[in-house]
Amino acid sequence: MNFDIKFDFQRRDRLGIIEAIWGQDKSIDQLKRLSESVLSKNEVVFITRINSEKANYLLDLYCNARFYEQANCLIIGENPNKIKTNKKVAIISGGSSDLPVTLEAKLALEIHGLNCQSFIDVGVAGLHRLINQLEEINKYHVLIVCAGMEGALATVVGGLLSQPIIAVPVSVGYGVSKNGKTALYSMLSSCSPGIAVMNIDNGYGAAMAALRIIKSIS
Amino acid sequence: MNFDIKFDFQRRDRLGIIEAIWGQDKSIDQLKRLSESVLSKNEVVFITRINSEKANYLLDLYCNARFYEQANCLIIGENPNKIKTNKKVAIISGGSSDLPVTLEAKLALEIHGLNCQSFIDVGVAGLHRLINQLEEINKYHVLIVCAGMEGALATVVGGLLSQPIIAVPVSVGYGVSKNGKTALYSMLSSCSPGIAVMNIDNGYGAAMAALRIIKSIS
Amino acid sequence: MNFDIKFDFQRRDRLGIIEAIWGQDKSIDQLKRLSESVLSKNEVVFITRINSEKANYLLDLYCNARFYEQANCLIIGENPNKIKTNKKVAIISGGSSDLPVTLEAKLALEIHGLNCQSFIDVGVAGLHRLINQLEEINKYHVLIVCAGMEGALATVVGGLLSQPIIAVPVSVGYGVSKNGKTALYSMLSSCSPGIAVMNIDNGYGAAMAALRIIKSIS
Amino acid sequence: MNFDIKFDFQRRDRLGIIEAIWGQDKSIDQLKRLSESVLSKNEVVFITRINSEKANYLLDLYCNARFYEQANCLIIGENPNKIKTNKKVAIISGGSSDLPVTLEAKLALEIHGLNCQSFIDVGVAGLHRLINQLEEINKYHVLIVCAGMEGALATVVGGLLSQPIIAVPVSVGYGVSKNGKTALYSMLSSCSPGIAVMNIDNGYGAAMAALRIIKSIS
Amino acid sequence: MNFDIKFDFQRRDRLGIIEAIWGQDKSIDQLKRLSESVLSKNEVVFITRINSEKANYLLDLYCNARFYEQANCLIIGENPNKIKTNKKVAIISGGSSDLPVTLEAKLALEIHGLNCQSFIDVGVAGLHRLINQLEEINKYHVLIVCAGMEGALATVVGGLLSQPIIAVPVSVGYGVSKNGKTALYSMLSSCSPGIAVMNIDNGYGAAMAALRIIKSIS
Amino acid sequence: MNFDIKFDFQRRDRLGIIEAIWGQDKSIDQLKRLSESVLSKNEVVFITRINSEKANYLLDLYCNARFYEQANCLIIGENPNKIKTNKKVAIISGGSSDLPVTLEAKLALEIHGLNCQSFIDVGVAGLHRLINQLEEINKYHVLIVCAGMEGALATVVGGLLSQPIIAVPVSVGYGVSKNGKTALYSMLSSCSPGIAVMNIDNGYGAAMAALRIIKSIS
Amino acid sequence: MNFDIKFDFQRRDRLGIIEAIWGQDKSIDQLKRLSESVLSKNEVVFITRINSEKANYLLDLYCNARFYEQANCLIIGENPNKIKTNKKVAIISGGSSDLPVTLEAKLALEIHGLNCQSFIDVGVAGLHRLINQLEEINKYHVLIVCAGMEGALATVVGGLLSQPIIAVPVSVGYGVSKNGKTALYSMLSSCSPGIAVMNIDNGYGAAMAALRIIKSIS
Amino acid sequence: MNFDIKFDFQRRDRLGIIEAIWGQDKSIDQLKRLSESVLSKNEVVFITRINSEKANYLLDLYCNARFYEQANCLIIGENPNKIKTNKKVAIISGGSSDLPVTLEAKLALEIHGLNCQSFIDVGVAGLHRLINQLEEINKYHVLIVCAGMEGALATVVGGLLSQPIIAVPVSVGYGVSKNGKTALYSMLSSCSPGIAVMNIDNGYGAAMAALRIIKSIS
Repeated sequence: MNFDIKFDFQRRDRLGIIEAIWGQDKSIDQLKRLSESVLSKNEVVFITRINSEKANYLLDLYCNARFYEQANCLIIGENPNKIKTNKKVAIISGGSSDLPVTLEAKLALEIHGLNCQSFIDVGVAGLHRLINQLEEINKYHVLIVCAGMEGALATVVGGLLSQPIIAVPVSVGYGVSKNGKTALYSMLSSCSPGIAVMNIDNGYGAAMAALRIIKSIS
Repeated sequence: MNFDIKFDFQRRDRLGIIEAIWGQDKSIDQLKRLSESVLSKNEVVFITRINSEKANYLLDLYCNARFYEQANCLIIGENPNKIKTNKKVAIISGGSSDLPVTLEAKLALEIHGLNCQSFIDVGVAGLHRLINQLEEINKYHVLIVCAGMEGALATVVGGLLSQPIIAVPVSVGYGVSKNGKTALYSMLSSCSPGIAVMNIDNGYGAAMAALRIIKSIS
Repeated sequence: MNFDIKFDFQRRDRLGIIEAIWGQDKSIDQLKRLSESVLSKNEVVFITRINSEKANYLLDLYCNARFYEQANCLIIGENPNKIKTNKKVAIISGGSSDLPVTLEAKLALEIHGLNCQSFIDVGVAGLHRLINQLEEINKYHVLIVCAGMEGALATVVGGLLSQPIIAVPVSVGYGVSKNGKTALYSMLSSCSPGIAVMNIDNGYGAAMAALRIIKSIS
Repeated sequence: MNFDIKFDFQRRDRLGIIEAIWGQDKSIDQLKRLSESVLSKNEVVFITRINSEKANYLLDLYCNARFYEQANCLIIGENPNKIKTNKKVAIISGGSSDLPVTLEAKLALEIHGLNCQSFIDVGVAGLHRLINQLEEINKYHVLIVCAGMEGALATVVGGLLSQPIIAVPVSVGYGVSKNGKTALYSMLSSCSPGIAVMNIDNGYGAAMAALRIIKSIS
Repeated sequence: MNFDIKFDFQRRDRLGIIEAIWGQDKSIDQLKRLSESVLSKNEVVFITRINSEKANYLLDLYCNARFYEQANCLIIGENPNKIKTNKKVAIISGGSSDLPVTLEAKLALEIHGLNCQSFIDVGVAGLHRLINQLEEINKYHVLIVCAGMEGALATVVGGLLSQPIIAVPVSVGYGVSKNGKTALYSMLSSCSPGIAVMNIDNGYGAAMAALRIIKSIS
Repeated sequence: MNFDIKFDFQRRDRLGIIEAIWGQDKSIDQLKRLSESVLSKNEVVFITRINSEKANYLLDLYCNARFYEQANCLIIGENPNKIKTNKKVAIISGGSSDLPVTLEAKLALEIHGLNCQSFIDVGVAGLHRLINQLEEINKYHVLIVCAGMEGALATVVGGLLSQPIIAVPVSVGYGVSKNGKTALYSMLSSCSPGIAVMNIDNGYGAAMAALRIIKSIS
Repeated sequence: MNFDIKFDFQRRDRLGIIEAIWGQDKSIDQLKRLSESVLSKNEVVFITRINSEKANYLLDLYCNARFYEQANCLIIGENPNKIKTNKKVAIISGGSSDLPVTLEAKLALEIHGLNCQSFIDVGVAGLHRLINQLEEINKYHVLIVCAGMEGALATVVGGLLSQPIIAVPVSVGYGVSKNGKTALYSMLSSCSPGIAVMNIDNGYGAAMAALRIIKSIS
Repeated sequence: MNFDIKFDFQRRDRLGIIEAIWGQDKSIDQLKRLSESVLSKNEVVFITRINSEKANYLLDLYCNARFYEQANCLIIGENPNKIKTNKKVAIISGGSSDLPVTLEAKLALEIHGLNCQSFIDVGVAGLHRLINQLEEINKYHVLIVCAGMEGALATVVGGLLSQPIIAVPVSVGYGVSKNGKTALYSMLSSCSPGIAVMNIDNGYGAAMAALRIIKSIS
């Protein structure tokens, strides 16, 4: 049998996409070995969903490690291949409970060299909070909308603005909205056309979707 | 054993609440016998979820029967005990696909003597359609909000107006919003406080909840 | 583009609706900053779903803070704009396990100036417990019914009394009734007409729905 | 390998339990061949969930066949081994929509020689209807309770009477109660102790559970 | 309005049914007050789903309290009104992981004066273990079958023996059988006729269902 | 109260976004009236999810109507405001069963003036089919991936190419993949970063998401 | 970019695996074109899930087409590359309602040249039916077990015999077992070790899994 | 009654299948007693899903006990009846998070005497990692594929290689893929024919399925 195949393995590096390390199900030992492997290639380490205990262990090991506690993310070193663009991303969210997801997206964008701005606490229960900032938000080229509960924010934003919109359901809530599935389904069912949706709490993924768009623009 | 009990069985009649007949799972013969039983007590017959075939059969039998095809409802006779009130109900809905539920609620209110007005096609994807009618809607004492898809309309209305709000999820949609459960969960999870929710497509129930409120006001 | 909009932002305050702070997903630091912001406007702070650890931290900070442990609620200060009404609310529940939800509703009503009375342990497995108190319950203008397990209490009360009824499913139970969804579905499917339903464990929301009704009455 | 096994194959016949034929997924041809096989052993044929088309085909073939259209059951011949007992079964149901399930249970009991009585339309929305017949129902030895929607009837009966109770959820309803699962979960979660539950719409199974009990009594 | 009603409240006591106290969601304080209330009426206290911490607190208070740790049950005092019968119950289970549910059922039966015997580890993966004990099991009048995983034991027992069978799904398993719902659905779908099913892990309820049957026999 | 608001209602038209009419839940009469309303504004009519019967009725009425049967779409007239761009969209799908969704997306893109190309039958079960066309697909600026069953195609494409990717789960399949939810969840869970997902069968929505991106590029 | 890849495309043909055409979601026209394409390569056409209407159309076109109505399969021509083996497969099923799935598996095996034998109606409710045929079944090298309802047959067979077992849940049943998911979960949760499971109703897939095993044996 | 039955109870031992002890729901005391019972028959003890605390207790008791922490397995003694074969099993997995399941399968194979090799981190997001090892993997006779998230690895492997494939969904992920059900459904829906699936995280079961196949080969 013949499986001779020649992929262009350098493509990934040239594009400046960092492979994040998902910290949640990994042991401290696994995280340490993965980090060493990445650093040995002069790449930046970007770990998501890491808790304080694991983070502190790595902070002791690497002097150039930074732990972003509210985002549950840890970064070691710098990304040598940041994208250069004047396009920027707005991250809009309904409440302070969405903060960890919002911040994960923000870090994932910034580590790739993208500018972004958070617009927090613009939930639809008080519509004026969103309306007041609409003109400012409209200056951004891609919109990431994070919301838990019933996730109506994505629909309202999508009905008012014409940019690419990436919606991220957040697992904030209780009862029927406990695990974020209500926000997910609500966003998928949005009557505002053209809203694309990520998995629950997937701030990193939303940033990567925005990155794919920005790269295709730039 | 002693089950001696003395209920006040006349209470129901005095309050003017009509017991609707749920037509969906009943045969023509069952509907005919139930109608005769109700008419023999000089009460009005109100059948919900009745299809054209069953309705036509009853229309042939009773000259004072009216079939409301879009509402899937049939009424025979008149309600002799209508409530007297100047309080009125607004029924707000997002699209023409919500019409059957909206109309079922409307008929159920009117047969009890309540005034109501429909505000159709005020979905949140085009927010201005709602904003334009907000002042008019604000004149009503109880608001029934019917919406399918992601049901965000209830949240937006609930954030702008202070009346009692009864939300009815509608089984319009496809994919994850196919059977109305996304709208139901979205409404239950609303970040606008104090929105009470009915079963999917339960226009009649929403009308009865409004009736309970109006009666307690009047 | 033109987003010039003039909302009546004072409306909310005039109506005396307090915006509760949902304590569950917020850090101590977030709660502290939110409380300070509310207090600086001479408003009362009302935090729901707060645990003992966070509550004790705030109790140390604010001498006029009260922690209601069974309700998982904390209040700082007094509401300067209580509603004035002689209408009152009954909170009916099936068992002592429903207590946290019942008490959250009670606190949310009282902080707005509403009178309310709890009727505990009137579950339908022993119907006489409910029947014995029916005459007393009938004196109240709005009924909140809290129940876990199969939630049949809402149906029985709804069949006997004609007031507005707000049903709150409670996440008490095990097996198929573990997370309160059976009670929720049971209440939504009630064969007693006009029962409006809140999200699981949403005692605060039920109080706000009652407040909307009482305000429309008064 | 040695699988020598000697079961007591006559046991089944001696006990007088008839093996029902489930008609729904079987072709007319399969039903005909199964019927012939049963009749050749001088047994009675009992087919459940058979529609009119299939039933009419068999009615043409067998002069001693009876089709019970409302029960969706067809019987050919007589059961030669009926049980002899003075114990009897009450079948209690909430509404006329539960009729097919109620009648399937009734036929399944009677074909085995058991006396039973139906108590229809005693739903809990109007509690007096049940209370009025409680003394009569109490004369029966096993109670089968059929209910759709929220299935609260089983809980109320189970709290008032001490007989063995077999609850059958019925797939009547819409929205969250559409397929009978809400009634099923409600009955399983009943706060009245000792209520045993069958699969949705399983009237035949409820009758067999009652038969197992009656046989152990007699 | 007239709610004059005269129930026969002594009926419950005369029948010797003990109202169990569900310990899981109750605080130590609530359990203490409920126990005192029951003991003051010279009744036995039977608490289910109580953990070691709460149990030890009550053991310190009441010298006649016994804690059954594997069953998660605590009993204070003796039942003065035990039923007198020579009928007995077999509790059959598939594995040692089902023990807590099996023991809860056993305690609930014995406190009411019923004889019962456990048949443990007779799962269907090794059919001979069941076959070997079939003749012994057949001497019992009511069979309680507890099983987790796929719950096939109920079907196999129900196909071999003709007694009343009460099936209890157990929340043992992982993946798709994690919470006991697979065992529940499997038992409800059993192709062996007349198997009645309880809520997941409801050993107490199964005992009460058996008690209802035994009382109707005796 | 003051709801004075000045939206820029012309914005929608200038951008050339057509509001599609969802034909599934609408009557022929509703479709006719909506079409007339749109045509009176010299706009193109674009109806999705319309069946042959309704389509034929409209084809009789409007000589410039075209019915695309495989796409379940009907178009009346021409779009006067097509976007001008040299960016183009590739629509990749796994099998001929995905055709209706693929074609709905294609029509929705073309009616807005976008160039697109379909790559059909490149499912991952035979990976070479995809690999063979990879170089060609790589020339497109936005990729729409439609797949039913387990939806793995999105992951494989997302791992090989760096464009913006919009994944559309298709309701093709049976058993656990019957309604498209498996494909939906699979796409949301993709281990290839930055894949954004639409509701099941939402070809129109995917086209609008692509349009939002292309507009932000152009 | 460089996607130069050299797969061994002849491998598939040499192994004699036929690519079945899934007929359910395909139009007559699509089926005709696919058939022509396959026949032009001198391959056999094997269509599954085809209804009578589509089948009759193809029967008219191709004189060497055979329609297996109970299996919902159509075959055109002969497989020129049948596998040669003396290993054989037993297909065991619980009832005549499982017939379509059983027959689909049988046809899929035979078209590849494998010997197989069906053992029908050996459900576990009457265990002796299985025990009686155990010695005969034990002569086969791979066992396919098809069962609906609670699917216990797979567990019982898996506990008695040591061959590779492929379990196929069948969508026969009602209530909680309506769509085959209970059988699927039951089989996945089997306490008999080493039972591998296919999608619901996937007789063809089970045959291919057996084929993979037989090929690795032969 | 006559239950005389003669099974061939020695068959199990002769085949060398070890009955694993499922450690998760068992107490230390139960594990100790079960281990003693197995050791007394000179059999090897194989405990799965055992945590460190329980394992350490048993390590203290038995000097020939080995705890495999990453696999959550503990083995005491040696298997005296290992199978003799030159057939071998490849275990392929997508990421280091799948390690516990992969290792459980590996231990379960090796304790029975089977050779196996792990191929880790060959997820489909980077297809070249799999392609690079395809020729090596092709040398193995049975393939076990472990994957979480969207589980696409099984489909890709199944499309490239012709061996028997046993897919194990892994409960790694978050949001919609949290509990492994998305991977399970994805594998069951695979468009690659003949992939057989185990319960979520069931590494032991996959090994036993492989063992059944290898035994039938050898």
